Amino acid sequence: MFQDVLKEVVDGTEGGLATLLMDFEGIAVDSYSKPNAPFDINTIGAEFSVVIKSIQRAAQMLEAGNTAEVAIQAEKMITLIRVVNDSYFVAFSMSPDANIGKARYMLRTRVPAILKELS
Amino acid sequence: MFQDVLKEVVDGTEGGLATLLMDFEGIAVDSYSKPNAPFDINTIGAEFSVVIKSIQRAAQMLEAGNTAEVAIQAEKMITLIRVVNDSYFVAFSMSPDANIGKARYMLRTRVPAILKELS
Repeated sequence: MFQDVLKEVVDGTEGGLATLLMDFEGIAVDSYSKPNAPFDINTIGAEFSVVIKSIQRAAQMLEAGNTAEVAIQAEKMITLIRVVNDSYFVAFSMSPDANIGKARYMLRTRVPAILKELS
Repeated sequence: MFQDVLKEVVDGTEGGLATLLMDFEGIAVDSYSKPNAPFDINTIGAEFSVVIKSIQRAAQMLEAGNTAEVAIQAEKMITLIRVVNDSYFVAFSMSPDANIGKARYMLRTRVPAILKELS
């Protein structure tokens, strides 16, 4: 079930490489990678679980409400992180020339199916 | 000089609230806030200097190249961070309904003037 959604997000986005469902402790639930993905999505997820925790702490301190989405644009990769609920997030890595608007749309519309399955 | 650019970015973006030029140690160089900004941009910058350091560490570990931009979407605020060089970044906070595409464009086109001034 998770696999279908994770694959749909990657295949539906030009430049999409890999997706991952992970908890905030850095433990992966499921993932999908295109065969040519130049990065290991599990490593990306584990690195960014630390980052997103620090973002959530910052948002709390600032009373900015819950964090919904984080986009990180590096030279060789864009990573979009969408918070599913208090325990889980989806990380989506794509090439630097990917259609990030489409990527955001795909995550926003597909993550509810993952949330439903997790509840 | 910085003040002009920081103000131009806020005023040129629908929903723009405040901008800040800060070094990665969390020390502000200059900032501009609209009078009605509901958040203190210096606090935001200091919180996110910690976040962006952890992102840069993650990107290094992943060999993803330098981080250019980070966008954080929380319930009550969007913060866009653009790395200026190895030492400085610009943080731009806006309301949740702001035009984030315009915000990214404004930062991308105005930050070179800041970089020139810092060099």
